[in-house]
Amino acid sequence: MNAAASLPSSLLEQLQTIVGEQRVKTDEDSLKSWGVDWTKHFEPRPSAIVFPGSTEEVQAIVKLANQFNIAITPSGGRTGLSAGAVAANGEIVISLDRMNKVLSFLHADRLVRIQAGVVTEQLQQYAEQQGLYYPVDFAAAGSSQMGGNIGTNAGGIKVIHYGMTREWVLGLTVVTGKGDILHLNKGMIKNATGYALHQLFIGSEGTLGIVTEAEIKLTRQPQDLKVLVLSVPDFAAVMPILHAFQQRIDLTAFEFFNHVALEKVLAHGHAVRPFDTESPLYVLLEFEGRFEAVVDDAMQIFEHCMEQGWILDGVMSQSQAQAEALWHLREGISETIAPFTPYKNDISVLITHVPAFIADIDAVVAANYPDFEVCWFGHIGDGNLHLNILKPADLTKDEFFEKCKVVNQFVFETVQKYNGSISAEHGVGMTKKDYLTYTRDPIEIEYMRELKKVFDPNGIMNPGKIFDLS
Amino acid sequence: MNAAASLPSSLLEQLQTIVGEQRVKTDEDSLKSWGVDWTKHFEPRPSAIVFPGSTEEVQAIVKLANQFNIAITPSGGRTGLSAGAVAANGEIVISLDRMNKVLSFLHADRLVRIQAGVVTEQLQQYAEQQGLYYPVDFAAAGSSQMGGNIGTNAGGIKVIHYGMTREWVLGLTVVTGKGDILHLNKGMIKNATGYALHQLFIGSEGTLGIVTEAEIKLTRQPQDLKVLVLSVPDFAAVMPILHAFQQRIDLTAFEFFNHVALEKVLAHGHAVRPFDTESPLYVLLEFEGRFEAVVDDAMQIFEHCMEQGWILDGVMSQSQAQAEALWHLREGISETIAPFTPYKNDISVLITHVPAFIADIDAVVAANYPDFEVCWFGHIGDGNLHLNILKPADLTKDEFFEKCKVVNQFVFETVQKYNGSISAEHGVGMTKKDYLTYTRDPIEIEYMRELKKVFDPNGIMNPGKIFDLS
Repeated sequence: MNAAASLPSSLLEQLQTIVGEQRVKTDEDSLKSWGVDWTKHFEPRPSAIVFPGSTEEVQAIVKLANQFNIAITPSGGRTGLSAGAVAANGEIVISLDRMNKVLSFLHADRLVRIQAGVVTEQLQQYAEQQGLYYPVDFAAAGSSQMGGNIGTNAGGIKVIHYGMTREWVLGLTVVTGKGDILHLNKGMIKNATGYALHQLFIGSEGTLGIVTEAEIKLTRQPQDLKVLVLSVPDFAAVMPILHAFQQRIDLTAFEFFNHVALEKVLAHGHAVRPFDTESPLYVLLEFEGRFEAVVDDAMQIFEHCMEQGWILDGVMSQSQAQAEALWHLREGISETIAPFTPYKNDISVLITHVPAFIADIDAVVAANYPDFEVCWFGHIGDGNLHLNILKPADLTKDEFFEKCKVVNQFVFETVQKYNGSISAEHGVGMTKKDYLTYTRDPIEIEYMRELKKVFDPNGIMNPGKIFDLS
Repeated sequence: MNAAASLPSSLLEQLQTIVGEQRVKTDEDSLKSWGVDWTKHFEPRPSAIVFPGSTEEVQAIVKLANQFNIAITPSGGRTGLSAGAVAANGEIVISLDRMNKVLSFLHADRLVRIQAGVVTEQLQQYAEQQGLYYPVDFAAAGSSQMGGNIGTNAGGIKVIHYGMTREWVLGLTVVTGKGDILHLNKGMIKNATGYALHQLFIGSEGTLGIVTEAEIKLTRQPQDLKVLVLSVPDFAAVMPILHAFQQRIDLTAFEFFNHVALEKVLAHGHAVRPFDTESPLYVLLEFEGRFEAVVDDAMQIFEHCMEQGWILDGVMSQSQAQAEALWHLREGISETIAPFTPYKNDISVLITHVPAFIADIDAVVAANYPDFEVCWFGHIGDGNLHLNILKPADLTKDEFFEKCKVVNQFVFETVQKYNGSISAEHGVGMTKKDYLTYTRDPIEIEYMRELKKVFDPNGIMNPGKIFDLS
């Protein structure tokens, strides 16, 4: 049975009137493609996919959905990892695919106005054409859309210096769940006129309304990026290394990965061993080396850290090609470990607590599942850890995930112990909502529910994401 | 009659039980001091001033106020310029004066946890003692409290590089209008677990609840700050100068002031004329000159701008003392013009629109009030303009302000024409709420009202600020 059959035919007709007949899809293939994100945990089951071309069309669809009391799932590049854009319950999917234009650019303000369907990489390239830079970057940049990035406040590999998506959003046009169009903050840096509603929409995963346009700030292009990869004896050494460099150099990245991760990437054959000294941990850091004096500074700090025993070995890129090769040691991890069916977690604790946090998790895994390989990597400069447990070859997927559930419970309890976040940058969606109380107090969640009612009194905007309404 | 007489005696007794007898003040002097901010537009008339020592005491007071249906005005350093902390209608003022401690510091995270009554300058000094820097700085830093800065999302002179207060707040403890204690975001850089409630509290001027503690990020101390003061022929030249410098140098300030402002400061006698070339406009810019190559870069850009005719003359500081002397040309303006009873406005438009905006205002003032001197200065690097009209000696205050009201209307209409903000960094409070619709749509204000009801259903938190409830 076609899921779309469940939609009243008058609703379908009205949707077609709003966007054009060809822009409402109800065939099985379309429902399957636009009904999921990268999680694949849930069976997609939307009723229809609609492709509006303007904010006003989105508004008309939202008003119609309210009238028929049908739920809506906003849909961007569908690269989410928490099922925030999955339509599993007969929702109308509003795809922003057609709203993919750069609308205007103000040179003096370094401000670009875009539609929400603009792909991250497209914005990065547009910025480059203006001699500028959009610094939020991550693995999915080639497909993720800016509306989705705003919905999850996307982070990535440059957060230590450039911050999250939130830092770059100076204005939003949204259609609320009620069907109102709001033009929020209009690109201003300074605007002290009451509640920052655009901040509330950033990271709200489409549960308050749909972002249709945004004003995005751009910045100066970084020049002559230098990359250092360091081998480090233990976690206790990571903090003083970070401190020593940060005191004098503005780092654009400070990443780490463990030995398991490095060996997997090297075995995969697409990267070259940076040095012979093996160690439990590796740090990758990056900075702008446009002035010789900064590079000299970095070398001095490096030597100081060697003398202190915090660094065992290290290498600094001498060219852009070398810098890219060194980055591949870190960026190749996700792809490399994919065949090992990794059990993934994206968590965050204060940097101070990272060593104790990792030690706690490692100890429990080693005690209970000595045959599990744990691949750690992440953005240690901002406390964001990616925990990946690799499936031993002799376990079936089901057996493995059953055991991981036990570890999962312990991971989230440990996150709570250190006042951390169960989702650093992937959002809550459907996959993490049952664990939300490990990070947010029940009373905070109650306030979130009440806030949602203000913007979406009928509860039609992406229901079942972040929290359930009751 | 003592205003406090209007409070039920059982309420007064219970307040004394919560904070201690000596910490509830109802004498006329205290009511007058703690009932006002720097605006002095309104007659203070609070019922009592209460000095809690902990979040729990604040919570108990808020619960009591709900029970008795008495309004509360949160009170920090009372340096506000929009009457956001004025208690003019029998409110209980909750002063954070006693909650002025630094609670803890995490080195690896560069994170300091403070009580909301910590004074801005106290935090700046604490940061310095850790070898770090708190970069939000403005004229009132010696008295303003961090809770108040958070309430208005304070900006100041370094926003172009360091952003507003919002950028530095990684966590808040608040007591909501309902009396709930929320620990929001807990210091994390990355936390994608639903609505960013702390962002909503930043800039809400105490209308949703009271900030009692905050986690504040610190950063590296800037080194060898260099200051350039430039004379510029017209506004058309300001944008290419900004662009030329920003392309290669990370500016920490880009300020401007007009000839009227410079002459007043020089006449005041506390500053030295930077060069002989007079011009309608002056720009002050600042950057870190810790590497010789950056200073060379700046000189090259300066020369290029001279060749283009964008700069007529200029001077660069050769020492810290000179840098401070040059800053005084800009920072001395407010104090210098105070005796001229200036009519002030703090507005913001996109940088692109600044020249047209200023030309519009100047033309209207010149046509209608040719005897008015207009003193312009501000943070042009972020679109924030301070408009000051000076009172001619032959007008009385009342005559002058009567005429200014007419100009005011035109100023706000012009702000609206350019999609700007009627309050860039001073907040709305009571003085600007009647003009809020020039920046925020009525429908946005309606959403703000509904959001307030979620946190403060009885409407007791700082009522009459930002907007009226009905």
